[in-house]
Amino acid sequence: MSGRSEWKRIDMLRAVLGGAAGAHVLCGIGDDAAILAPAAPRGGALPGAPEPLVWTIDSAVEGVHFRRDLLGFEDLGYRATMAAASDLAAMGARPVGLLAALVLPPSVSDDELGALAGGQRAACDEIGTAVIGGNLSRGGEISITTTALGVAALPLRRDGARPGDALALAGPVGLAAAGLALLDRGVAPAGAAAEQAIRAFRRPVARIDAGLRAAARARAAIDVSDGLVADVAHLARASGVRALLDPAALVSADLRDAAAQLGLDALDLALYGGEDYAIVVAGPDVGELTGFVAIGRCVPREEGASDVALVGPDGQLTSLVARGYDHFA
Amino acid sequence: MSGRSEWKRIDMLRAVLGGAAGAHVLCGIGDDAAILAPAAPRGGALPGAPEPLVWTIDSAVEGVHFRRDLLGFEDLGYRATMAAASDLAAMGARPVGLLAALVLPPSVSDDELGALAGGQRAACDEIGTAVIGGNLSRGGEISITTTALGVAALPLRRDGARPGDALALAGPVGLAAAGLALLDRGVAPAGAAAEQAIRAFRRPVARIDAGLRAAARARAAIDVSDGLVADVAHLARASGVRALLDPAALVSADLRDAAAQLGLDALDLALYGGEDYAIVVAGPDVGELTGFVAIGRCVPREEGASDVALVGPDGQLTSLVARGYDHFA
Repeated sequence: MSGRSEWKRIDMLRAVLGGAAGAHVLCGIGDDAAILAPAAPRGGALPGAPEPLVWTIDSAVEGVHFRRDLLGFEDLGYRATMAAASDLAAMGARPVGLLAALVLPPSVSDDELGALAGGQRAACDEIGTAVIGGNLSRGGEISITTTALGVAALPLRRDGARPGDALALAGPVGLAAAGLALLDRGVAPAGAAAEQAIRAFRRPVARIDAGLRAAARARAAIDVSDGLVADVAHLARASGVRALLDPAALVSADLRDAAAQLGLDALDLALYGGEDYAIVVAGPDVGELTGFVAIGRCVPREEGASDVALVGPDGQLTSLVARGYDHFA
Repeated sequence: MSGRSEWKRIDMLRAVLGGAAGAHVLCGIGDDAAILAPAAPRGGALPGAPEPLVWTIDSAVEGVHFRRDLLGFEDLGYRATMAAASDLAAMGARPVGLLAALVLPPSVSDDELGALAGGQRAACDEIGTAVIGGNLSRGGEISITTTALGVAALPLRRDGARPGDALALAGPVGLAAAGLALLDRGVAPAGAAAEQAIRAFRRPVARIDAGLRAAARARAAIDVSDGLVADVAHLARASGVRALLDPAALVSADLRDAAAQLGLDALDLALYGGEDYAIVVAGPDVGELTGFVAIGRCVPREEGASDVALVGPDGQLTSLVARGYDHFA
């Protein structure tokens, strides 16, 4: 609806809230995370830390971000933690801790809460951090809001890509969407690919190590939570470039097999499926980074052209339009 | 219900989550905020910052923390921001920024969201900080989760009070509860006291400056969100002391007048009314701090005695039991 979309609302919030941020705020509303300067003038400064702080918050709401019939409480805790940590990965940051605010209906038992916390702990152990505080509240629907704090010598924003930069990907794309489809249809997973897909959906992994490796060589990064086209489009628009994607690089063997079981198009899942928490980075030689796969390149932006296009076998371009989830559309 | 109370749940979460926090976490689950060391060994450290970071998260959920019929959207944004910042005040910290995660039903209009953000901005302007990022999500009920980050040369925990310490208060107690009662009963505010009470409820102020003044002289602090007895009991238990309160110091002229309009007992409001976001500090000479009023003292803890007691005119003690809100009782 006109004027109601999530991005228009974020623009409006930036206008109302952004003015008083102060010189120590290197990056405010609109990127994967905020960046705070290590040293800045008095009155709201962070004195003397040698590395900037990177700070993000993310909510997982029942019925919007997750369905209780497809995920256990341990999965909920695990996914919510990784989703927040993924914003740090996309900034090339190392986590130093998380806080979690839980809103729980009275029907949630102590055992279920314990399982949720167990999932948070397992996710934290995986990426070398911990939940060090939080808040508990009653509410009508479950929500898990996680804030993650990290440090990054050279934080990666989404607006640094330049024409000529390669685009590279760490982590799967489309596999979590395939796993969701398998669970939603009640398809018994046949074989390793289907099991990988379900695992990608239930236990996505924030690409912290990949982000740290990319930090020294990449000029921009974003995590893929809404779908590859939607998130690459954010990076392209913020950077003032157009992104060209190579379809051959996007479909893994697992994704092809899982898509075949579902009768779905594997490339479609790779382009539009969300919640994998892969990261995409841009830079002159990012395709050579360990753990990354080259998936395309940045070219100059053209008037009227799409933010993202697919390069066909003969070099012809097909414009891609994001189908990412808009909370208020 | 046995095993279901908020504090038992927090203890359980500490057991599941707390083990992997790392040496850089000076204070984890259980205080007003977490404290991160300015410098610590590699692997999850915050290198080199001269002042510890203080970090908190707080949720305000519709129907639990606020009623839409008594508060406008600007009030909601203002209160949620001050409630989170109040945890920094209670640690003697200076805020460096906030992130806000908003969960909004589709019925919330752009104008209402703008008013909410306007309230957040007004609260931030009042205490010299800004909302520098956040998250927007759809949901079935409004919730505002705010995380606040600050720095404190000498963070004030709640476990530092010693027998013999004075207790001192900055900010009103009971006045917000009187304001809520006036609004709830639809009583037209008669006179300045009633207006002050309604303002205390709609626009509470985090006592940042008072917390900063106290930081150098106090040994412990807590903010009063659940009611004076409930929160002083937390401080007393954590510190291993008993707190004795002087009733004469707790009732302001405004509170007496507002309580009289309501036919309520002013001392009862002061002891058990919540959401004023005053702060209580403990230390040898905290009663002399500018902006604070001496309200009592700490004595040795006695087996079987209450955490908090009121000192009568002849020195006799009356045990006080918290009536603070328990989300899961």
